[in-house]
Amino acid sequence: MSQSLNLDDRHLGLVTDLYELTMAAGYHVYGMADQRATFELWVRRLPSCRNYLVAAGLEQAVHYLRHLSFAPEQITYLRQHPAFRHVPNNWFERLASLHFECDVWAVPEGTVVFAGEPLLRVTGPLMQAQLIETYLITTLTAQTLVASKAARTVTAAQGRPVFDFGSRRAHGPQAGLLAARASYIAGCTGTSNTEAARLLGIPSLGTQAHSWIMAFSDEQEAFRKFGELFPDASTLLIDTRDTLQGARNAIASGAAMQAVRLDSGDLGQLSKEVRAILDDADRQDVKIVASGDLNEYKIRDLLAKGAPIDLFGVGTELATSRDEPTLNVVYKLVEQETPQGTFGRFKLSQGKKNYPHPKQVYRQRDAHGTFCGDRIVKALPPTPTLPHQGGGSHSPSPLVGEGWGGGEQGDPLLVPLLRHGELVEALPSLEEIRRRCAEQVSRLPKELLALEPCQSYPVEVSEELEAELSRRG
Amino acid sequence: MSQSLNLDDRHLGLVTDLYELTMAAGYHVYGMADQRATFELWVRRLPSCRNYLVAAGLEQAVHYLRHLSFAPEQITYLRQHPAFRHVPNNWFERLASLHFECDVWAVPEGTVVFAGEPLLRVTGPLMQAQLIETYLITTLTAQTLVASKAARTVTAAQGRPVFDFGSRRAHGPQAGLLAARASYIAGCTGTSNTEAARLLGIPSLGTQAHSWIMAFSDEQEAFRKFGELFPDASTLLIDTRDTLQGARNAIASGAAMQAVRLDSGDLGQLSKEVRAILDDADRQDVKIVASGDLNEYKIRDLLAKGAPIDLFGVGTELATSRDEPTLNVVYKLVEQETPQGTFGRFKLSQGKKNYPHPKQVYRQRDAHGTFCGDRIVKALPPTPTLPHQGGGSHSPSPLVGEGWGGGEQGDPLLVPLLRHGELVEALPSLEEIRRRCAEQVSRLPKELLALEPCQSYPVEVSEELEAELSRRG
Repeated sequence: MSQSLNLDDRHLGLVTDLYELTMAAGYHVYGMADQRATFELWVRRLPSCRNYLVAAGLEQAVHYLRHLSFAPEQITYLRQHPAFRHVPNNWFERLASLHFECDVWAVPEGTVVFAGEPLLRVTGPLMQAQLIETYLITTLTAQTLVASKAARTVTAAQGRPVFDFGSRRAHGPQAGLLAARASYIAGCTGTSNTEAARLLGIPSLGTQAHSWIMAFSDEQEAFRKFGELFPDASTLLIDTRDTLQGARNAIASGAAMQAVRLDSGDLGQLSKEVRAILDDADRQDVKIVASGDLNEYKIRDLLAKGAPIDLFGVGTELATSRDEPTLNVVYKLVEQETPQGTFGRFKLSQGKKNYPHPKQVYRQRDAHGTFCGDRIVKALPPTPTLPHQGGGSHSPSPLVGEGWGGGEQGDPLLVPLLRHGELVEALPSLEEIRRRCAEQVSRLPKELLALEPCQSYPVEVSEELEAELSRRG
Repeated sequence: MSQSLNLDDRHLGLVTDLYELTMAAGYHVYGMADQRATFELWVRRLPSCRNYLVAAGLEQAVHYLRHLSFAPEQITYLRQHPAFRHVPNNWFERLASLHFECDVWAVPEGTVVFAGEPLLRVTGPLMQAQLIETYLITTLTAQTLVASKAARTVTAAQGRPVFDFGSRRAHGPQAGLLAARASYIAGCTGTSNTEAARLLGIPSLGTQAHSWIMAFSDEQEAFRKFGELFPDASTLLIDTRDTLQGARNAIASGAAMQAVRLDSGDLGQLSKEVRAILDDADRQDVKIVASGDLNEYKIRDLLAKGAPIDLFGVGTELATSRDEPTLNVVYKLVEQETPQGTFGRFKLSQGKKNYPHPKQVYRQRDAHGTFCGDRIVKALPPTPTLPHQGGGSHSPSPLVGEGWGGGEQGDPLLVPLLRHGELVEALPSLEEIRRRCAEQVSRLPKELLALEPCQSYPVEVSEELEAELSRRG
């Protein structure tokens, strides 16, 4: 009678665009469903206000792929759908017993990436590899968006903790969890979202809402009672009536407090005055938390003016990636084995360059370890001399091959993730991903870390791939 | 080992900001948890590119409220959380057996609303009424954002169907479902998201991806085979290589087709040329579907130039409300019963006007039925002479009272939704909500329906409320 529209892990098969399913039925009927195909996912253009992106969301994508299945009621729905009237019964049966068995290579979460670089490469039966497009794109886009925004915000805060306060502004309850995770990857210290903190094992932070202050007749009483119950976690919100008087009340109340929070007004000026009030009362130990429509630009400007703010809570701008709320992510067929041979595939649209064939990206570092350029190349075909990963390879696979241990070409960005649908190795922990992100960002050329647009990072495409394109164009 | 971050309906209690929980514990410890309080939720400002908003998301909010509970592992998490170290055991027990029992009034989904107007009013025990803030805001914001964008898009399409194609761009898998629902409310004809279509019982539409065309060596074969399997649902994607040649191939292939889809290039020019090619071949029956980064402005311009497009697929812009990806929604304490009496509550921040006390909004129509102004007034206290809704009212409640059957003051926007946590009456169906929205939008002054900013709609606040503010300010 009412629905939450929260998704159930057991019912993700149908969370895809209808055309993925009509195509899947078509590939089945025309004997193409098992043709080995490779799809790649990449960001077509960097948003104008992003100098780099931070790849995120892969764990959720992997979870989906490994648990992909259709619930009986979803199969029934398709059987009754008018578009599928002429689809034979054995396709529905096939769907009902679907098990994802593709090989997947991907750029690890926390890696800095640029436009045109494959973030994910799926090789396997054409029907399966196609079906997953919609869920993969939305899952990787949502977190990459927020991680990329968060990385800028964390940089702007120059080492001061930044907390995700954005759950209420995220595009729905799940988007809040995804934003909390992505923010943490990119260096935020934690989140206000309690369930996200629980599920992810990350720090949660809370203060009070204005309603707490208003619920007491007296501000000092509100402060005192809060500090009494939460003596080690007491951040007092001092702007409900008057920020400076609030600061004086916080001191006069004698409340236990570790910090005060400013949520409105001229944060630069107020933070200085509040700091002075605290210091005059010998409360140098009390930190100042600022929140209220903050973003990377405002944080930079506050710190440039010497605002004595110790911790930033960032909500709306972070959780919605407000200035750039979307990424142009595509997932395209790039190679296909047919009875006539293996062919590179690409779409020839106006102004859109898509290169055929599975690809790898190599990243070069200069003598100081700073990233100085990426090169997109055709992925090497598998070579039997390299160590073989497990048995049961029934067809040539790009999973082995491609000396991806680094070398002259630089560091390869794509690494093997799934082999026949199974994890090649355990996924990294969130802490490992977060450390990777910090290390990656630290290796970026300085000009890319500025908040101003500077999309100067060189990403070149190999002569071999360019030649493929001009030969067919 | 990996997590989907899809939310489970049985685990929504902790999907809230940590401060809601610390405050809840505080209200419990200080004997205030059962004080009767009223909170209201409203949009503080209209985004500059929206002349009105369409309220949406209420069904999901109600579902949450009616199923609100804490899973054992969530209680355990809080017990171990360092912030809650001094919170007594009986608070955790109280949380574990929490049952939402507030009264809720709300503006029905599909209603046109403006800044400052309460969309939802919650009256009940302070602790519960506070806890729900985060989930309520995110749920109502996400759908109101998209419904408001969709209404503009549908208006721009002047009666031509608009389909939601945005799932892959939404901020995660759930956001895609929410966007599909909100779009449908605001007049979209359906969605590409198959699970959304199944869950909501709304039309789904699919065509092909470019990969289908690329997977065949020959475009005509790709078209023919699709039409063979889907003779009644065959929209052929003709822009993979060359749009005009694609149109000719669609005809020459002899494929069954109801429509062709253009997804790139100059849609205005191409649609005219494709229409001519189809008409020359006596295929006046074949419709033209356009997609590719469309929004209300582009649709308006295409139609103004006479583009013969029959159906629009809109993705990114719709599902992310790209130009305005956030709403400034707040949820504030406005009244509280204490041992000392009942007090209106409001925060006195710079530049932010919050009025105390429960409120109602009345909407006036002119002689033609066009909406001509809203008035926010203090909600009437309950009067025993009005019909009583069910039994068991143990305390005065604003649920009855407030002659909300219309009259001289205009039509009241807020209607009773939950009484002691139970539905007052069955929720409207999605079709009813959609009809309501169409009717509401049709009653807007013409200038508000233009795409240009025009925030001229008069919303006044009663003298009584203004007086309350100045008396306390």
